[in-house]
Amino acid sequence: MPEMRNVYLDHAATTPVHPKVVEAMLPYFTEKFGNPSAAYRLGQEAHEAVASSRELVADVLGCTPREVIFTSGATEAINNGLKGVAFAWGQVSGNHIITSVIEHHAVLETCRFLKRFGFEVTVLPVDGSGLIDPADVGRAITDRTVLVSIMLANNEVGTIEPVAEIGRVVRERSRSLGRKIVFHTDAVQAAEWLDLNVDRLEVDMLSLSAHKFFGPKGTGVLYLRRGVPFLAQQCGGAQEEGRRAGTENVAGIVGLAQALRLAVEHRESNAAHCSKLRDRFVREVESRIPDVVFTGHRTLRLPNSASFCFKYVDGGAILLHLDFLGIAASSGSACSTGSTEPSHVLTGMGIPAEVARGSVRFSFGPGNTEEDVDYVLSVLPDVITRLRAISPFGRPVNR
Amino acid sequence: MPEMRNVYLDHAATTPVHPKVVEAMLPYFTEKFGNPSAAYRLGQEAHEAVASSRELVADVLGCTPREVIFTSGATEAINNGLKGVAFAWGQVSGNHIITSVIEHHAVLETCRFLKRFGFEVTVLPVDGSGLIDPADVGRAITDRTVLVSIMLANNEVGTIEPVAEIGRVVRERSRSLGRKIVFHTDAVQAAEWLDLNVDRLEVDMLSLSAHKFFGPKGTGVLYLRRGVPFLAQQCGGAQEEGRRAGTENVAGIVGLAQALRLAVEHRESNAAHCSKLRDRFVREVESRIPDVVFTGHRTLRLPNSASFCFKYVDGGAILLHLDFLGIAASSGSACSTGSTEPSHVLTGMGIPAEVARGSVRFSFGPGNTEEDVDYVLSVLPDVITRLRAISPFGRPVNR
Repeated sequence: MPEMRNVYLDHAATTPVHPKVVEAMLPYFTEKFGNPSAAYRLGQEAHEAVASSRELVADVLGCTPREVIFTSGATEAINNGLKGVAFAWGQVSGNHIITSVIEHHAVLETCRFLKRFGFEVTVLPVDGSGLIDPADVGRAITDRTVLVSIMLANNEVGTIEPVAEIGRVVRERSRSLGRKIVFHTDAVQAAEWLDLNVDRLEVDMLSLSAHKFFGPKGTGVLYLRRGVPFLAQQCGGAQEEGRRAGTENVAGIVGLAQALRLAVEHRESNAAHCSKLRDRFVREVESRIPDVVFTGHRTLRLPNSASFCFKYVDGGAILLHLDFLGIAASSGSACSTGSTEPSHVLTGMGIPAEVARGSVRFSFGPGNTEEDVDYVLSVLPDVITRLRAISPFGRPVNR
Repeated sequence: MPEMRNVYLDHAATTPVHPKVVEAMLPYFTEKFGNPSAAYRLGQEAHEAVASSRELVADVLGCTPREVIFTSGATEAINNGLKGVAFAWGQVSGNHIITSVIEHHAVLETCRFLKRFGFEVTVLPVDGSGLIDPADVGRAITDRTVLVSIMLANNEVGTIEPVAEIGRVVRERSRSLGRKIVFHTDAVQAAEWLDLNVDRLEVDMLSLSAHKFFGPKGTGVLYLRRGVPFLAQQCGGAQEEGRRAGTENVAGIVGLAQALRLAVEHRESNAAHCSKLRDRFVREVESRIPDVVFTGHRTLRLPNSASFCFKYVDGGAILLHLDFLGIAASSGSACSTGSTEPSHVLTGMGIPAEVARGSVRFSFGPGNTEEDVDYVLSVLPDVITRLRAISPFGRPVNR
């Protein structure tokens, strides 16, 4: 047995806060603790920290600072973005929303919520690699459509969606119908790796979560393009120009902005580093372990993401064994842990439920090393073999 | 002139995070950074931190841990609490909500939001000291009432409302009508000072914000009594037992719980310390400065709160001068800074707009000293005198 080693391969679930980010946050807990709405110096100092963080984020998104709304995370951004547009506009000009079968629960459940209020939801299919066809979006748009929400990259299989192309389709259909259709993208998984320029992405709304890119949990961003009708969902004070009430999480906002700055600064080198590790890992897993199904797209894929279904074995059991061996990985979305249903993403891609049951996602980070990959490769094949030997999932004897 | 001194007297707006609280939070940024939904050890460690924080909060509230929902702050707790109940229940069993004229904007604006969805809102008056008459609540309840929201203590004038008595009225009317009426209290300002036991308070929902009691900004609590119908407003993952989706702000939650524990531990000594300073301050202000109106109740009042209207002068101008002198105070709610309207709380108490314009709130904290009071008293009368000399607000010449 190789020496036990702690290897964190679940960066898609969450990341540690970068030490430089913690350092940037600390003064805002104890010294610069003012309420940004207060007029005195201590308040204005906090206000300026929020304002300069907003500029930093705007710079990354290629938008104006006023189009950046700080939230408590991506789930809030998605909920309040979709509801904010639907309730502001939908009820008069239409009630139809388009999304896809592989979206995060935050999008799907928000759509379900909106159904209670009379909205109709079209859930588009994906192909076997998790890709949405932009033409499907165009065909689904009707003269009642108010909102389209398609993720930039999938959290379970890492597939990168053709968001810019979809944005163009939405814009063209919108123009030909003579009415605005708002296009939102959940960029949570993509933030560390892909261009987030909202004009190049052709989106009207975009959601981010800091803890996915080495920022603090409890902070996020909703980008809201100027002119998009929006009914604030979190009501109260005048913060965020009346679009999101509540005292600003100053330290969290400062942390989010610094983390985003660092992520963009190191995007290329981090991507090169992670994809090199990831590519070797995928190659070795596929060559050393039989009956493994690589999930998601081979190339249109986040550079840090490797996902598989190991046939005839339960993903949860694999994770448990890996955890004993010091390795942190995931069976898909961390947010749906505890569910015994096979992943809606994998079944949406046409993977049979009994195969989807064996899914494991490995997501690399800039701190991972070749030694980490060596270690996982040294134990994973054995874990799978042993589990298959005792598996209740009926591996055919005659193979 | 006395030596310049920094004196923070705006603890009702926000507080610095207690050093012990920062210390408790720090490991959850960098080491124990796991996603609480993840099954591996790093995730379970985070999960346990959230669980033990929940127990701590439940212990203070006298409820079960499952009745505690962590939120991004009180504004979210209030929004999602009121909407969660209204949308879950109101649409079938009734559409009437009762609140008061002196509530925080988070409550009033949420009620306004609900009006768009067919709810009707009765806004109860208060007396000259800011007190709500429980009998008024009883009289306002109809067979369509689903929700009553009355604050535990007012943020601008510190008046403590008879919440337990109102709770009993709601319960009795509820029983005689044979239908459940949910009672919520905004306990944001009261948290550091008053008993928060939800049974003694006779409430079904209660909202808290950590940054008002030396915890971090961006974290709060919604207490939701078992059995209260609730439609989750933040949809997505299964966190908080499906009642508030989104990755938990682990460090923030740990900070909130530790801050609440400290607040309760030192409640009596802090209250004694602050009320002593406050009482002397009020006495001296009233004796040294003419034409000053003490606002709020004299005794049913938070121990740290002093609020006045200085006639013939603008509160904003006073604050600006105090800021130059190192003193941080507020003209009322920090959340409505920028508004030129006189405070809805003060006008709701029957104070004429021209008097309300001169309002200043001083809110003490355990770190304030007699020397702080001495310093403020040494400069405040002169600030008022000088401002009145140049005031555009027409002080009568013949006095």
